[in-house]
Amino acid sequence: MESYSSAKEYLSFLDSRSALPEGFLAATTGIRFTPKERDTAEPLAMNLSLILLEKDTADFAGVFTKNRFPGAPVLMGRERLGRKTIRGVLVNNKISNVCSPGGRQDAERLLSRLSMLIGTEAENLFTASTGIIGWSLPVGEMEAALPELFRKLDSRSILEVARGIMTTDSYPKVRRAAVGKGSIVGIAKGAGMMEPNMATLLCFLCTDVEIPRADLREELSLCVGRTLNRISVDGDQSTSDMALLFSSGRRGPADRAEFRNSLMDVLSGLAADIVRNGEGAGHVIRVRVKGGKDEQTAAAIGKAVLNSPLVKTAIFGNDPNVGRIVSALGDYLGNAGVPLDTATAVIRMGGTEIFSRGAFRLDTAKETALSKYLREAGFDPKTRGFPQNDKTVDIEIDFDGSAHGAVETLGTDLSYEYIRENADYRS
Amino acid sequence: MESYSSAKEYLSFLDSRSALPEGFLAATTGIRFTPKERDTAEPLAMNLSLILLEKDTADFAGVFTKNRFPGAPVLMGRERLGRKTIRGVLVNNKISNVCSPGGRQDAERLLSRLSMLIGTEAENLFTASTGIIGWSLPVGEMEAALPELFRKLDSRSILEVARGIMTTDSYPKVRRAAVGKGSIVGIAKGAGMMEPNMATLLCFLCTDVEIPRADLREELSLCVGRTLNRISVDGDQSTSDMALLFSSGRRGPADRAEFRNSLMDVLSGLAADIVRNGEGAGHVIRVRVKGGKDEQTAAAIGKAVLNSPLVKTAIFGNDPNVGRIVSALGDYLGNAGVPLDTATAVIRMGGTEIFSRGAFRLDTAKETALSKYLREAGFDPKTRGFPQNDKTVDIEIDFDGSAHGAVETLGTDLSYEYIRENADYRS
Repeated sequence: MESYSSAKEYLSFLDSRSALPEGFLAATTGIRFTPKERDTAEPLAMNLSLILLEKDTADFAGVFTKNRFPGAPVLMGRERLGRKTIRGVLVNNKISNVCSPGGRQDAERLLSRLSMLIGTEAENLFTASTGIIGWSLPVGEMEAALPELFRKLDSRSILEVARGIMTTDSYPKVRRAAVGKGSIVGIAKGAGMMEPNMATLLCFLCTDVEIPRADLREELSLCVGRTLNRISVDGDQSTSDMALLFSSGRRGPADRAEFRNSLMDVLSGLAADIVRNGEGAGHVIRVRVKGGKDEQTAAAIGKAVLNSPLVKTAIFGNDPNVGRIVSALGDYLGNAGVPLDTATAVIRMGGTEIFSRGAFRLDTAKETALSKYLREAGFDPKTRGFPQNDKTVDIEIDFDGSAHGAVETLGTDLSYEYIRENADYRS
Repeated sequence: MESYSSAKEYLSFLDSRSALPEGFLAATTGIRFTPKERDTAEPLAMNLSLILLEKDTADFAGVFTKNRFPGAPVLMGRERLGRKTIRGVLVNNKISNVCSPGGRQDAERLLSRLSMLIGTEAENLFTASTGIIGWSLPVGEMEAALPELFRKLDSRSILEVARGIMTTDSYPKVRRAAVGKGSIVGIAKGAGMMEPNMATLLCFLCTDVEIPRADLREELSLCVGRTLNRISVDGDQSTSDMALLFSSGRRGPADRAEFRNSLMDVLSGLAADIVRNGEGAGHVIRVRVKGGKDEQTAAAIGKAVLNSPLVKTAIFGNDPNVGRIVSALGDYLGNAGVPLDTATAVIRMGGTEIFSRGAFRLDTAKETALSKYLREAGFDPKTRGFPQNDKTVDIEIDFDGSAHGAVETLGTDLSYEYIRENADYRS
């Protein structure tokens, strides 16, 4: 992770990351509307964003939430994975179009209108929505804005779209990596529940190297599984989570192993950005699990510790309350039926051994040093529009003292600011 | 649930519930000590409590945490289930005796000394501890207090012990029910993490009716499974959770079905008391799941909704943010692989239908009414030493519109006060 001293510095840095790969166009535009479901004092603001390939491509991939109440965009997106070719994705923030009456027809109407402007079929366009769950899209206002959105398409930068898809993220997130003779550029929003109903993680990836569809899909699943699926701000998987990857193929083929490395770089960078900008986060916590049964179990163990409100609040308070880590770990293992030999397990915080040979290893000097370690890794939970701190609180859970197969998960503490952002929005 | 207008009124009510069943004695006493692991400005306070049968009994039962880092009292308790007879339990608060170096020997030394005072074997005594995880018991100070504890034993009331086992519970919890010619009296503490490491739920039940050991054990498991195991304040199962049930048999046999009903009454009352006194709780939330696959799945679904930080913070803010309920539900079902037909599922809050036939059913009038409903069910999260409010926020998840097999789980909202209590204690 990196840290910056001002929003200006961060944005100038992002600017250099945001050049679109060859063969892509992007645009964003804003509208105002009044929701049907609630009297609002003023109209609400929504952004419409568009990422488009210059030509339809057969090489695209998507992964979607497993939530049992998927939004219309997720249902439509899954169907589109079977299309021969795809042209791009229309994205809106503010309302997530999940289980609202007539939500699917609303989305189809928008894509139909947009496809005519573009000159493709409506079924060749994905749609993605993030925002309040249960409300209806202001489809009239959105439709009216599509011509302007189309006119604004530009091949230079994805930065305005990275900003346009934000909900209460306090800064845009863009990552890029070189690959072959081209690059992969990715943007993302969300993950922390930064507005009332916005668990949603959206991620869009564009590359101009040529990777066949089947390979692209394998790589996206693998890399998302090891990055975006290993972060947790509040443990909720939204109704609308989605990651899409498009290849224009304009810069020719790339080595698959190199592609995987670059995609992993982009996605792990976005994952870190999302966690660091998690709502009300005052510490980023990294849990490394070593030597568990398998990768999946190790990741689940890491998340269980990250999702414990007791671990999270202790770290917010700079309290090296290591008993809570052990309790959360033991709770998960017991419920999941995963065995653990307490005699050989080793637990460390910030590299300091706190549990080994079946017992805690604590003294006043250690507790003082760990308090200091936590204070130094903290930052202001009222986010300021740029990443302020590159430190993490490192917790290591080592099943047998051996160092093989560390699996890393990332999360945040739990602060007053989290409660404020999540409790006070609509009341 | 009941509500009271003052601590005095509540305590006088408890007084009438607290008479010990025949054949039991109880006492509590306080000590001061300085922990080895941390420089504290002043000595810390700990209570030692004792519940004793007048004679050893073969009819006793215990259930213990599944946490993989169980405390010494849990390990010793499991062994004692195999004893021919048992005499009682020694309980301390403040330090939980979990994985501290030499913790088991500490507990054995205390029981050995106590058994000599009583005139039984050390192995005929349970021990239970709740408090900070990882620190060592002040065994010297505790041992010195045992003669006084023994002298204070009294057959009248369990109320002082109900108070003595508290950590940051703000009021003692006692429930009683008649059965046959006798009664069951139960006390409990905890569940909300009210102090730094105190997830611990301790529950002690005394009855003077005669129920054979095997039946007693079946009934305890069944009733705890439907009551204490269906509440959740922060989702953590501690290293020290324990429920023990002793029968003196002095009032003769009782009908088993009647015993089950009475035990269920006592345990569901204690469960409600614990949730209402959950740390920083400003609303009690009751989730009823109807028509799921089986009882266990239904309970897991209820807990998943109760444990969602997003649902909890919305309810704290009196925000009828029903999208979050659906999102949390769908997240759990998706991860657990539990099918759900969104077309037939019905979700209600406070009896009002918010989701049916595959879509949200919301309008401004409904949202206004639900906000009012939430405000009226709220109470001051700074607890005042007595239950202030008997209202719950009711959420109903009905898989197929039929009303069969409702499974109920209880939890709390997530407030600033929760963060304060959990973050600021040791920093």
